[in-house]
Amino acid sequence: MLRARPKGRPKATDVELVDVVVGAPDAGHVRVENLVMSVEPYMRGRMGGEATYAEPYPIGEPMLAPTVGRVTASADDTVPVGALVLHERGWREHALVPASECRIVAHDDLPPVVHLGLLGIPGMTAWIGAERIARIETGDVVFVSSAAGAVGSTVVQIAKLRGATVIASAGSREKAALARDLGADIAFDYHDGRVTDLLRDALAQVGASGLDVYFDNVGGDHLEAAIRVINDHARIALCGMISIYNAETPLPGPSNLIKLIWRRARMEGFLLRDHLDARGEFEAQMATWIRMGAIRPVHTEFAGGVAGAWDAFLGMLDGTATGKAVVPLGTLGAGTHGGNDSLDKEANR
Amino acid sequence: MLRARPKGRPKATDVELVDVVVGAPDAGHVRVENLVMSVEPYMRGRMGGEATYAEPYPIGEPMLAPTVGRVTASADDTVPVGALVLHERGWREHALVPASECRIVAHDDLPPVVHLGLLGIPGMTAWIGAERIARIETGDVVFVSSAAGAVGSTVVQIAKLRGATVIASAGSREKAALARDLGADIAFDYHDGRVTDLLRDALAQVGASGLDVYFDNVGGDHLEAAIRVINDHARIALCGMISIYNAETPLPGPSNLIKLIWRRARMEGFLLRDHLDARGEFEAQMATWIRMGAIRPVHTEFAGGVAGAWDAFLGMLDGTATGKAVVPLGTLGAGTHGGNDSLDKEANR
Repeated sequence: MLRARPKGRPKATDVELVDVVVGAPDAGHVRVENLVMSVEPYMRGRMGGEATYAEPYPIGEPMLAPTVGRVTASADDTVPVGALVLHERGWREHALVPASECRIVAHDDLPPVVHLGLLGIPGMTAWIGAERIARIETGDVVFVSSAAGAVGSTVVQIAKLRGATVIASAGSREKAALARDLGADIAFDYHDGRVTDLLRDALAQVGASGLDVYFDNVGGDHLEAAIRVINDHARIALCGMISIYNAETPLPGPSNLIKLIWRRARMEGFLLRDHLDARGEFEAQMATWIRMGAIRPVHTEFAGGVAGAWDAFLGMLDGTATGKAVVPLGTLGAGTHGGNDSLDKEANR
Repeated sequence: MLRARPKGRPKATDVELVDVVVGAPDAGHVRVENLVMSVEPYMRGRMGGEATYAEPYPIGEPMLAPTVGRVTASADDTVPVGALVLHERGWREHALVPASECRIVAHDDLPPVVHLGLLGIPGMTAWIGAERIARIETGDVVFVSSAAGAVGSTVVQIAKLRGATVIASAGSREKAALARDLGADIAFDYHDGRVTDLLRDALAQVGASGLDVYFDNVGGDHLEAAIRVINDHARIALCGMISIYNAETPLPGPSNLIKLIWRRARMEGFLLRDHLDARGEFEAQMATWIRMGAIRPVHTEFAGGVAGAWDAFLGMLDGTATGKAVVPLGTLGAGTHGGNDSLDKEANR
């Protein structure tokens, strides 16, 4: 449960692990045994009190997280017992969920984690950003930051499938190596120098004069460095700015925005919620790519079950994860809190 | 003639006024008596040596400027003597111009200055920015900076014709009053406070919660203030950043670009050169508006003819002009340099 709104880096005392009774579902609800939950950067924003693009999580309630689970009791005809569902009531082992907030997953033969990753929010975010916002085409030179992250690792692979040349930035040599494994033509660890210099070197190595697309997951110096080398009619898809999520005072923005005029470039922010009409098209395309082996799932499983989820969240913020950061829960979680019999158990308060 | 590349604010010694013989046109050329020339902010960039979006003006040659003149001698069948033409060889009273670089103006019953203003670069820039980039629609709340300038004063009027609510920023009380005369619902002098506060007050006065469109002619604090109050799916058309043209070191950019993500907003730079296909549509629409009296030409005529053109350019950069800044030349110029008989006269060097 969220107990306090974090200032700067979140602390363990901002949340509390509690035992509660999870009873039978009321009419129109189902009970779900959660199998795996997601931890994502945007959660940091929703823990804060300032309204950003989503409602803050209320104090004194369990937080939300995209979660895949199996329905164990149902009081709604549309979501039967045994169904594999995606819902938002994570950060707990068992959840009572309105049936209207459950989505029975398509392609339920794929591993549960795929529904949080490639077929979930980060996968669809990558796809919308690449296809609808940046509109990556054959021959484009594409720069992707946070390229070993859940979104970035998918963008790298989509861009290669689309016939682009891909330059990747990541936060360690291991992550840069992963980006190369996923198909990036060049990948660097941004700790190895100024991003501007690393990017110029990378462009020289691929024989390109500039960028047609920058897929921005971090903001800050990456964004300024990218703007410095955009080609005419470049597209910058603003997906995230993890570099500033923990900043307590505003950081100055790029000093070279005038290049957006000289290069007639477009910079556009986007959120998945505006593109839900594309879900069917996206799922069909992505599931095909996964089954073909054309796109590889990349994820990090944090151990400890629900008791370990907070550390998993902090680890994800600190960049220790590659690909989608997930926490197996319940019978899938190594350190299950209370085990299956916590269901219907008396609260120890 | 350009003699030196300006550092910071341009100086009189950066240019030199010289007398030269203008002879008969070679084959494929015409001789034009210039009637009126334009001074524009982008010229500052082309005087500098750094490649921006246009070639620098060469040192030791006359600079270029959009100019309207009457053909006085022709060695090309396509451009006859007597034609009113638009060309780039301004900063001089008579010019030899390749016929291929002359455009015979449509709507030549309108005053010559209109072909440099509403029907010229600034008018078409305003129209492209409003119609193709910002896509202003009925009901939009539109913020325009430099609203008494050549582009801004036209955007204000187009936005009102499209049914938008218009908030205008200008550089003096007189200019703000002009913007209100042109139809702006609210107009402020940005010297009267912080732009952020002035803009918030303006929004409150028109009963709006935020901006759907910001048409940016200045960059800097105006851009940051506008981003602070954008609505979902806002469009920011980047047209110019006059606030930084004279800066010798880069100024920090807006610190709140992350709002482009939260608000799913688009920020896009543009240059007229990519939209020349629209000229016919634009001219027909704008000429109709002018003849209907729906859009009013706004311009400042600087005196002194070609000898006064440099001071006119500096005055325009300093913001002393309202609307399109022009310099009448030759028989139209008050202080004609050498008069008509400078044609074919020996150079006094």
